[in-house]
Amino acid sequence: MLSSHFSHLRIEPAVPADIPDIVGLIRELAEFERLLDQFVATEARLDESLFGPHRYAEVLMARLDRQSVGFALFFHNYSTFRAQPGIYLEDLYVRPAFRGEGVGEALLRRVAKLALERGCGRFEWSVLDWNQRAVDFYKALGAEPLNEWTMFRVSGDKLTQLAQA
Amino acid sequence: MLSSHFSHLRIEPAVPADIPDIVGLIRELAEFERLLDQFVATEARLDESLFGPHRYAEVLMARLDRQSVGFALFFHNYSTFRAQPGIYLEDLYVRPAFRGEGVGEALLRRVAKLALERGCGRFEWSVLDWNQRAVDFYKALGAEPLNEWTMFRVSGDKLTQLAQA
Repeated sequence: MLSSHFSHLRIEPAVPADIPDIVGLIRELAEFERLLDQFVATEARLDESLFGPHRYAEVLMARLDRQSVGFALFFHNYSTFRAQPGIYLEDLYVRPAFRGEGVGEALLRRVAKLALERGCGRFEWSVLDWNQRAVDFYKALGAEPLNEWTMFRVSGDKLTQLAQA
Repeated sequence: MLSSHFSHLRIEPAVPADIPDIVGLIRELAEFERLLDQFVATEARLDESLFGPHRYAEVLMARLDRQSVGFALFFHNYSTFRAQPGIYLEDLYVRPAFRGEGVGEALLRRVAKLALERGCGRFEWSVLDWNQRAVDFYKALGAEPLNEWTMFRVSGDKLTQLAQA
C-alpha cells in the first residue's frame, strides 16, 4: 500500500535524464537548510558520481505525473559491530508545494524496503536540530536519535594538512 | 614523514588473513565504547562484506612487527551539495598498550591521504560525546564538530515496520 495521499505518486530509481531535476532539487534543499554557500554541485559531477564507473550513491525520484516533486539520495554505510552493511540516507527532499501529503514518507519507506531487501541491519540519516518538523516526523516513524554521538568533519586546507604529515 | 614514535610502524590495507585480528580488535573497541551488547560480528560476515563480491568497507591495519595494534575501517559517503564523494571513518581503534605514540594519528592521516588521492572533498567520522580524549585529539588535528546535526537510526522490528506500509 502506498502511504501517500497522491494516488498517482511514483517512486522510482533516477535515470541520467533526471540529472537536471536532481540538481534543481538539491539547490532548493540547500536553500531550505540555509546552506546555499556550500552548494557547488554541477550536472557533470552529479552524472559522473551517480552513473559513472564508480557509483557513489543512489537516487530515488518521487514523481507526480511527469513532475519531479522530491528525491532521496542514499549510499551504503557499514557497521563494524554487526559486520554488516546499512543504508545511510544523505538527503530527503520534497518540494514545499507537495509537502504534508505523504511524499517524504513514501520515499523513506521505499528506502527502508531496499535496506531489508539488501540485508542491511540499519537505516540511518542525520537531521538539523532546529528542523523540529523533521525530528517529530522521524520519531513518529520509529527512528531513534543517537544523541551521544557528534560528527566531526575535515575538509579543504585542513584536509590537505592532515594528509601531509 | 611518519607521525608515529614507533619507527617500525606499518600502515597497510588489510588482507583476508587479517580477519581474525580485525574481529578481535572490533570486540575490544565495543568493550571500550560500552557497546558490547551490540557486538555480533563474525569472521564469516566480516570476510564476506570486506572481501566478497560487494566490498562495503575498507580496512587499514596498523602493525608493529607482525602484531596488529590497531585498525581504521572506512567507506565512501557522498555530499549532494558538492556532488562529490567523501570518506567516512566508521571506526578507528588502537590497543590500549600502544596508545599515546601516534598510531591513531598515523591511521587518521593515511585515511586523509587516501581521501585526497581519490578526489574526496570531505573526511568525516563520529565521536561519542563522553570520549573527551578523542574529541580533543580530533579538534587538535583540524576537525570541526557538526554540533547542529543529530543522527537518527531505525533497525530491527522498527525497520521492518517502516518498510511495510
